[in-house]
Amino acid sequence: MRVLGIDPGLRNMGWGVIDVFGTRLIHVANGVCHSQGLDLASRLLSLHEQLTDVLARFGPDCAAVEQTFVNKDAVATLKLGHARAIALLVPAQAGLNVGEYAPNAVKKTVVGVGKAAKQQVDHMVRMQLPGAQIAGPDAADALAIAICHAHHMQSAGRWAAAVRAAQ
Amino acid sequence: MRVLGIDPGLRNMGWGVIDVFGTRLIHVANGVCHSQGLDLASRLLSLHEQLTDVLARFGPDCAAVEQTFVNKDAVATLKLGHARAIALLVPAQAGLNVGEYAPNAVKKTVVGVGKAAKQQVDHMVRMQLPGAQIAGPDAADALAIAICHAHHMQSAGRWAAAVRAAQ
Repeated sequence: MRVLGIDPGLRNMGWGVIDVFGTRLIHVANGVCHSQGLDLASRLLSLHEQLTDVLARFGPDCAAVEQTFVNKDAVATLKLGHARAIALLVPAQAGLNVGEYAPNAVKKTVVGVGKAAKQQVDHMVRMQLPGAQIAGPDAADALAIAICHAHHMQSAGRWAAAVRAAQ
Repeated sequence: MRVLGIDPGLRNMGWGVIDVFGTRLIHVANGVCHSQGLDLASRLLSLHEQLTDVLARFGPDCAAVEQTFVNKDAVATLKLGHARAIALLVPAQAGLNVGEYAPNAVKKTVVGVGKAAKQQVDHMVRMQLPGAQIAGPDAADALAIAICHAHHMQSAGRWAAAVRAAQ
């Protein structure tokens, strides 16, 4: 199963693709989409085109996007909402289910604690995906989201198998 | 010139199309897209499909979207950001320029004052587009945005003509 993780941002949108074979994770690719254009509509169009291209190139089976941390800076929250809509729309247009995870859920899955520092996440992503050349912190976050989704889907799969066995 | 106005909202996205001949405005169509789906990605996909259909049916030459009022409710602001991204993306995908106007700029153009009540806007839209059957308050707001864009483009056009005449 191939999983796409997306770390939404208007300026830099990180993405990471991993293959999941049982409990084994293999890095496929990662990168960052940079929005280009003078106005907001052009920037969103640019992100949409780049992310659509990522899906076409790597053909993931499912996707996951980080839930937005709503903070006191309403203008920043609004910008993130715009970017996040693109991150959710593009996989939905490809017919994929899109998982959503809060930042501390991602950290808890990848590092073991919900309040891990960014460097710790980066370190654990590199540990779990040896040999991956990572395009920067946004791409590392996107790979962490993909790893989180893979773990949750495995747990859900084991649960479903246990329910089937008990019936 | 045909203008599409969009009033962004995640649950209800109003849209209105008008034709502009000099200073004459003619109502073409209006309506409301209702997002359907269990999760956010499906709802955004649903809005994207409905709005893409509106553009295909009416072929506007330009579009305008209301700027979001950033308020203290960060969760509501974030939701509106998601919806607004779709409202900006769809016309940009069709190659249209997208104007953005603050709510009080729309009111000032349509009613004459920036702090007009919703009913006043609705009333003035009906006055300026006689005979239009309006699908509800979100559609009325979308028509107001289209009227605002038409006025601003005319002012810009007259300014450009005056500059050309003075040269």
